[in-house]
Amino acid sequence: MFQVRTDLAMEARELYHEEKQIEIPGVAVDQDFFKDVTITRVEVLEKEAEAIMGKPIGKYITIESSALRRSDADLRDEISQLLAKELRALVGPEKNLKALVVGLGNWNVTPDALGPKAVSKVFVTRHLFQFYNKDQDDDLAEISAVSPGVMGLTGIETTEIIKGIVERTKPHVVVAIDALASRKMERVNTTIQLSNAGISPGSGIGNKRKALNQENLGVPVIAIGVPTVVDAATLTNDTIKMVIEAFARQTSKGSQFYNMLMDLKDEEKYALIREVLEPYNANVMVTPKEVDEVISTLSQIIANGINIALHPGIDLKDVNRYIQ
Amino acid sequence: MFQVRTDLAMEARELYHEEKQIEIPGVAVDQDFFKDVTITRVEVLEKEAEAIMGKPIGKYITIESSALRRSDADLRDEISQLLAKELRALVGPEKNLKALVVGLGNWNVTPDALGPKAVSKVFVTRHLFQFYNKDQDDDLAEISAVSPGVMGLTGIETTEIIKGIVERTKPHVVVAIDALASRKMERVNTTIQLSNAGISPGSGIGNKRKALNQENLGVPVIAIGVPTVVDAATLTNDTIKMVIEAFARQTSKGSQFYNMLMDLKDEEKYALIREVLEPYNANVMVTPKEVDEVISTLSQIIANGINIALHPGIDLKDVNRYIQ
Amino acid sequence: MFQVRTDLAMEARELYHEEKQIEIPGVAVDQDFFKDVTITRVEVLEKEAEAIMGKPIGKYITIESSALRRSDADLRDEISQLLAKELRALVGPEKNLKALVVGLGNWNVTPDALGPKAVSKVFVTRHLFQFYNKDQDDDLAEISAVSPGVMGLTGIETTEIIKGIVERTKPHVVVAIDALASRKMERVNTTIQLSNAGISPGSGIGNKRKALNQENLGVPVIAIGVPTVVDAATLTNDTIKMVIEAFARQTSKGSQFYNMLMDLKDEEKYALIREVLEPYNANVMVTPKEVDEVISTLSQIIANGINIALHPGIDLKDVNRYIQ
Amino acid sequence: MFQVRTDLAMEARELYHEEKQIEIPGVAVDQDFFKDVTITRVEVLEKEAEAIMGKPIGKYITIESSALRRSDADLRDEISQLLAKELRALVGPEKNLKALVVGLGNWNVTPDALGPKAVSKVFVTRHLFQFYNKDQDDDLAEISAVSPGVMGLTGIETTEIIKGIVERTKPHVVVAIDALASRKMERVNTTIQLSNAGISPGSGIGNKRKALNQENLGVPVIAIGVPTVVDAATLTNDTIKMVIEAFARQTSKGSQFYNMLMDLKDEEKYALIREVLEPYNANVMVTPKEVDEVISTLSQIIANGINIALHPGIDLKDVNRYIQ
Repeated sequence: MFQVRTDLAMEARELYHEEKQIEIPGVAVDQDFFKDVTITRVEVLEKEAEAIMGKPIGKYITIESSALRRSDADLRDEISQLLAKELRALVGPEKNLKALVVGLGNWNVTPDALGPKAVSKVFVTRHLFQFYNKDQDDDLAEISAVSPGVMGLTGIETTEIIKGIVERTKPHVVVAIDALASRKMERVNTTIQLSNAGISPGSGIGNKRKALNQENLGVPVIAIGVPTVVDAATLTNDTIKMVIEAFARQTSKGSQFYNMLMDLKDEEKYALIREVLEPYNANVMVTPKEVDEVISTLSQIIANGINIALHPGIDLKDVNRYIQ
Repeated sequence: MFQVRTDLAMEARELYHEEKQIEIPGVAVDQDFFKDVTITRVEVLEKEAEAIMGKPIGKYITIESSALRRSDADLRDEISQLLAKELRALVGPEKNLKALVVGLGNWNVTPDALGPKAVSKVFVTRHLFQFYNKDQDDDLAEISAVSPGVMGLTGIETTEIIKGIVERTKPHVVVAIDALASRKMERVNTTIQLSNAGISPGSGIGNKRKALNQENLGVPVIAIGVPTVVDAATLTNDTIKMVIEAFARQTSKGSQFYNMLMDLKDEEKYALIREVLEPYNANVMVTPKEVDEVISTLSQIIANGINIALHPGIDLKDVNRYIQ
Repeated sequence: MFQVRTDLAMEARELYHEEKQIEIPGVAVDQDFFKDVTITRVEVLEKEAEAIMGKPIGKYITIESSALRRSDADLRDEISQLLAKELRALVGPEKNLKALVVGLGNWNVTPDALGPKAVSKVFVTRHLFQFYNKDQDDDLAEISAVSPGVMGLTGIETTEIIKGIVERTKPHVVVAIDALASRKMERVNTTIQLSNAGISPGSGIGNKRKALNQENLGVPVIAIGVPTVVDAATLTNDTIKMVIEAFARQTSKGSQFYNMLMDLKDEEKYALIREVLEPYNANVMVTPKEVDEVISTLSQIIANGINIALHPGIDLKDVNRYIQ
Repeated sequence: MFQVRTDLAMEARELYHEEKQIEIPGVAVDQDFFKDVTITRVEVLEKEAEAIMGKPIGKYITIESSALRRSDADLRDEISQLLAKELRALVGPEKNLKALVVGLGNWNVTPDALGPKAVSKVFVTRHLFQFYNKDQDDDLAEISAVSPGVMGLTGIETTEIIKGIVERTKPHVVVAIDALASRKMERVNTTIQLSNAGISPGSGIGNKRKALNQENLGVPVIAIGVPTVVDAATLTNDTIKMVIEAFARQTSKGSQFYNMLMDLKDEEKYALIREVLEPYNANVMVTPKEVDEVISTLSQIIANGINIALHPGIDLKDVNRYIQ
């Protein structure tokens, strides 16, 4: 059956909710509303919920703000700080934190370059700790960072590369940044998701098979992602839904044709989507034209959030002024 | 009414042909078929045809090869030579040719960077003619080249900038390279269009209002374009058409609902498209994921074709070995 | 004779001053000192001075701060504002200003990309004035911008291209940004020079022959430049001088050898430089390793200064927050 | 004492040879001469030689061709094949070879980007072997590749990262590509060095402390390097030597001053170099202006050589046509 492709837990939950009009059993949801920003916290608590959602047990926090598309630096700063707060909560009260920040995705495909771009702006300190032979500092955490590149370029599962580095450098936590796919264009480049459930296979635009998570790496993995594209299949699916609704509006409830519309099976919808996209040979994406610019803004917001969250002595003023 | 967005004359003609099942009066069409390549020559001969096609009077040649997506260097060379042959025919038998090559589009938006990228690979010689005080050479034409950038970055109509340069450097002909939009994804990155009708307003992905043509520049303008994206509106429109056809197949001809489907007005279709794309705020495109790589291959093919066509003493071997 | 290569008027004056221990007749010099910044104003007043300095009559203002190498955002902001103040003074009290900002140099040679990079960050408005059919605005000046590329890539003298654009768009003033060469590494990336004398031939790293100045363009030209490299010849020359001084220190004044050292002709020094650099075939430069990063910082400082100076309604807060 | 900085074994040997006029004991040298190319094979056989040369025991092969600076594709192909031949000899007759190709250096510093650029053009296959569950193939070797980035960006010793990957992927051999420093500008971008002794600490332009060699990684390490810069210290040192020789020529042998020149201690020379470079704060390099372009040509030559050498079924025609 056609599976709407989404990496956002809130969307997976939304899809279920729209259909069944009820909450997924074993899932807790709450929301905070600020002036321009909405924070949604979805927690997957039970195995059943995991199956329904297609998301592993864990916490999923999304920070949404349509205003992110406007180049409003005040708002960007606010988002960085909200991100820092949520990230710190997920990392927990570790003193003398050692963290490895990982940029997933492909430098050479603009909408997939979010991770590597963000990592390049993270304030890396591990080599300084080694050089001065320190193992703690009041202002700085011991941060290392790497952007291994996608499997198509390295020939190696990203998880394998990271596991090798984790084994040798022994961080307390891995923070992995990735570009995601959304089912709704209005969420593209306006939504940041944090999760302590790692990154599940097939997510992102690139091809990262094996999950980056505590089970595979042996340390907690916190994922930070932003949807930067929509699958063409999603756009097509939306269109089909709307055409059907349009017809439904034009036909008298209960009429034979109305029923035919209502009875339209997912299989049939999926067949239509395949038919439409076949000439596109599937390997296409729907993306805003200004994607290059947007990616560099988002990578800065995320890097700022990480620098503020992980380094005890660094605040917003510092990241705007001295780091970058 | 919803206008399918296409910069390809062959598609404009195709659209008419599909509907009316007849050729557009005042349009001549012929085709050559090679092993992997199809060349279609559409000539708009009369004002009426101009109006119907939405393309000015002139010749439109498209070189198509789905094989272009495979990284087959032999085929790429073949295309460069076919392009050179067609381009030379449009330029005409000028001795001591002086040409200005113009790269339209925006460096910073990957699918729109085709023109500037191709221009950067054209073998420029005008300054050498000036330096050695020559005004002719057996092997080399006098070539200059410029990529002015889009109006959003310069604040100046591209045509204004080029006109200023043409007035001062007096080329015989302007060759303008641009990224185009297609109505069919299978044509994206597989089709090269040449035309002696210049480039009409609104074409390309960027925003180039005033036409680059003989009327505005005072010298012949030959346009070379490749569709590198499809409008999301086009994808949506295709979807709607297919959904309607699917229903039509499921309902008995002549039935009240069948007629309703057939009677569906373009206005209604357009309303649906607007409805679907509204959250996408229109500013989206559908593009292959490997677009960055594809653009650099295509820009090389086009630059090779131009170098072979314009410089009498340069052939395929030279462009592959010494220029680049 | 070996001419130390410098594009900085203050250095040309310094060279003379070091030798003759007197000020150049017909040159006025004054300096302001701030905490981290020194501003030197050299004015070439007479033809004689022009000949001695190798700099045309006009004002040359240099803003120097070694601290520029530290990534101190407060200082960068201070420099942007000082630059804006000096630039505004050179432009004069024009109401409804129309300006064309030109980025000289070559995108593809990092230390030469300063101009194009800065231009890409200037807030361009001319097309908006055209679109809304305004010819004045309280907050915004009418700004256009272009980076034509170097002659080696275009085949056209930069001055020719700009003259064509000036004739068609009729700005009140041209502001040209370029990368310069210094005779002292300590000035590289720490010095910004403004001048109302245009940019003289051969300056910069690239090859821009014909001067961009009022005489050639018909409107005032204000040049903004930053030395981003030192000629290898300069480094060699410094070395030779120091070796000779070292020997001189070791030999008794008046001794035959001491005199020999003192008598060493410039011709002989130049012969030595040629001998040392010959294997380097001259086409080399001395540059800081972190040049890529430095260029992007400097281009932002300059763009900010220009945006603040030219747009009446834009101040530092705006450039840091909403433009970029 | 001032140590001329060179990563080329042939230069280290040359330096000794120039001084003492004899071969270094425990070093074997032979040369092959082709039309445009010279191949020099230096083998360090004994511990004493290791100390004198500052190069570990092993084979060092340099392929030199001044013609490399001309964009002659035939020569580039010839070099790729010579490189492939030498590389194959060092790798040895391994059937079903598994190799990890490592790009050392910093993406963001042009002359240091040689390694990562070359790696991006290597034909990577390991993931295909895994996917199709093969462990051998007649035409293809099992190749993986990674460009970990420099310690300043990752906070981790490059050797640590590579060791982690080697332990998990178990290649037979590591091939490491790096940008080097030469003592002679004429060798910059004209010389390729292969070695089976790994890459010794401090080599290259970046900062790679711990050696990438068999001792540290547990598998043979073959290093491929190209000098892309000269230390400013080297240029200064050359200058001083030439000034002294110039004076020597001008003074009668045996005269007191002649002896003073001859007696000039290395310490004194070094003091002079420090004095000259002090304002340059050491962090400068001497590089050809066209370095960006040169790096991309060289990275292609090296990638071609590696693809031909490691993949049994790939020859020159393939790399020029289908890979890239």
